[in-house]
Amino acid sequence: MRTRVEVAPASLFGPDNLPYGVFATTGAGPRVGVRLGDHVIDLAVLLDDPVFAEPSLNAFLAQGPARWRTVRDRIREAVDGELDDAAVHRLADVVLRLPVRIGDYVDFYASIDHATNLGRLFRPDGDPLLPNWRHLPVGYHGRAGTVVVSGTAIARPYGQRKTDSGAPVFGPSRRLDIEAELGFVIGVGSRLGVPVPIDEFAERVFGVALVNDWSARDIQAWEYQPLGPFLGKSFATSISPWITPLAALESARIPLPEQSPAPLPYLHGAEHWGLDIDLTVAWNGQPVTYPPYSRMYWSPAQMLAHLTANGASTRTGDLYASGTISGPEPDQRGSFIELSWGGSRPVSVNDRQRTFLEDGDEVTITASAPGPHAARIGLGEVTGRILPAHPH
Amino acid sequence: MRTRVEVAPASLFGPDNLPYGVFATTGAGPRVGVRLGDHVIDLAVLLDDPVFAEPSLNAFLAQGPARWRTVRDRIREAVDGELDDAAVHRLADVVLRLPVRIGDYVDFYASIDHATNLGRLFRPDGDPLLPNWRHLPVGYHGRAGTVVVSGTAIARPYGQRKTDSGAPVFGPSRRLDIEAELGFVIGVGSRLGVPVPIDEFAERVFGVALVNDWSARDIQAWEYQPLGPFLGKSFATSISPWITPLAALESARIPLPEQSPAPLPYLHGAEHWGLDIDLTVAWNGQPVTYPPYSRMYWSPAQMLAHLTANGASTRTGDLYASGTISGPEPDQRGSFIELSWGGSRPVSVNDRQRTFLEDGDEVTITASAPGPHAARIGLGEVTGRILPAHPH
Repeated sequence: MRTRVEVAPASLFGPDNLPYGVFATTGAGPRVGVRLGDHVIDLAVLLDDPVFAEPSLNAFLAQGPARWRTVRDRIREAVDGELDDAAVHRLADVVLRLPVRIGDYVDFYASIDHATNLGRLFRPDGDPLLPNWRHLPVGYHGRAGTVVVSGTAIARPYGQRKTDSGAPVFGPSRRLDIEAELGFVIGVGSRLGVPVPIDEFAERVFGVALVNDWSARDIQAWEYQPLGPFLGKSFATSISPWITPLAALESARIPLPEQSPAPLPYLHGAEHWGLDIDLTVAWNGQPVTYPPYSRMYWSPAQMLAHLTANGASTRTGDLYASGTISGPEPDQRGSFIELSWGGSRPVSVNDRQRTFLEDGDEVTITASAPGPHAARIGLGEVTGRILPAHPH
Repeated sequence: MRTRVEVAPASLFGPDNLPYGVFATTGAGPRVGVRLGDHVIDLAVLLDDPVFAEPSLNAFLAQGPARWRTVRDRIREAVDGELDDAAVHRLADVVLRLPVRIGDYVDFYASIDHATNLGRLFRPDGDPLLPNWRHLPVGYHGRAGTVVVSGTAIARPYGQRKTDSGAPVFGPSRRLDIEAELGFVIGVGSRLGVPVPIDEFAERVFGVALVNDWSARDIQAWEYQPLGPFLGKSFATSISPWITPLAALESARIPLPEQSPAPLPYLHGAEHWGLDIDLTVAWNGQPVTYPPYSRMYWSPAQMLAHLTANGASTRTGDLYASGTISGPEPDQRGSFIELSWGGSRPVSVNDRQRTFLEDGDEVTITASAPGPHAARIGLGEVTGRILPAHPH
């Protein structure tokens, strides 16, 4: 039997989008599919290719940009007509898995508004923006093994936090927070000792994910000097189940905000573009902030060029994220520590005054971008609910 | 044909040691072996078990401590007699590979002498030891994808460094350094949300590697605030080809130096032990410093308990390292920035005054520990030569 998958004209997941994910159904192992409207198309069936029968996108990503284009063209052509029923699943009938086997995970700090806000909150006595910030995309390595797919419950982490007496106590975090970010997935890795030139971005990066880099601010504030965030972040990072290919975001390219001083030559490409992606963060169902990716200071290509400038190699499936996306307005802040200004200005959520996350809270980040036609391109969502801390 | 492998009585790699590695020979793919004297015993042949025909130790490590003991007993028994020739290779005839497929790589900062020295050099105006240091093992994530096996040449990294004018320049690092460390390899991983209690260390950790965490101090000094080391470290970390099982280091267990204040309960185990391992760092063949692992403040078990205290999961093959091992004496410092006091007190190496690494330099770290009998236990070596920076 063959069916045509109907998609509402305003769907965020129409034929101009076609993001990739990994799904499982009752009785069949995880494999690669694309999302079309409220359906998932099984690519192993549709294209009869074993590279899509894998439990991650990695084998496909490693095939490189020419192949990414061919496959996208073939899928677009196929979904324009009728599809074999065996290739079509209702989204509600599948379980979505972590789409990528992640090698290394790097998190940047590329929003000037976020860095300024955090600087004010963490270092009230100094310049909020440190001297290096406008010269390089500040970043650090996160824990790849604790990147989880959207929907995974997040246990409140234990950790040390400082007390007024100076001696720390150990217990469940009291300042559990989110960070709304965009992540970039590397398709074609690069060799040790060979930096990726800034203009090779499109040959290397396959697509983007929505990221929630859960953060325990009390743990982070006590531990982070001098070597940076560690346990305040490493308990979990959630990503969307859908990886949106860069090919679906061509209409979202916009010029970067001005960079001053001018970046050093290795960070200066032939074209400097950002992405016009609008995020929404919902707290227990209520939208509370709207971070604009369009305002990010450092571009995706600059982050990759910097990450590899020292000769560091990259691998298929490596993930690097933008850092918290915050705009200049109060309702554009991508973390609750900014939104509640360090907990001092509670936010009204469903008629309650809120600062940090409570057990049972659910946070959902969604995003969309302009498409080539009237319909916007959706980036799926990344959601998670807070569980009480496990007994220690 | 069967042969008895002869080992000199004083060999560091006698039958009380038997470290594991991955080796390849002409015409045969990488597989698991143990070192005995100047030979490598092919375990896939000796024990006729496909788990050892793998290109990493991971499958064996995942089998857990009971199996580790059985295998070690069987090898010890076998090497006491004659071995099938097909299982025996001369060390000189094999190529040693990266022994472990590393999931996440964490680097700690567990030496109080090193942390004090670096604090003085990087933050001359403040307290050298930050307030958190005696309360928790400070650590951060490094780049797992750039961990390489001993013998891999290290290209001098490019990066930004600060100038007196305040504006950074981009070029090859001028302050390329080493860090002599001990690394711990996780055998049995742990689940997300479930901390590893401090007394589960021996159930989880399989063995140790020697580590050289190459560091570009000029890049590091400019980039590291506020998120910690990134490109100053991520270009390469070298590890020894031999993983010494903890079972071979039982005679090396010693009490930890006193910890003050007393550690919080999750960092307080039934027994507190460190390891009496003596390192030697040779610069172009000349021993220049002798870092004592015995002086480390935080224990291997404390580092693992801390790493997972927030519920972070671990995977077979994860590597966590101690951070630079430095003792209180000038000739016990495990990095050249300490040894030359920030470059201000050159060291005589083969009759030349030296501070940081020049192209062509070779650094070799070796180590040994007491064994159950007269012979000491060798930890192999980690060596690397500096290549000129690649053109950018």
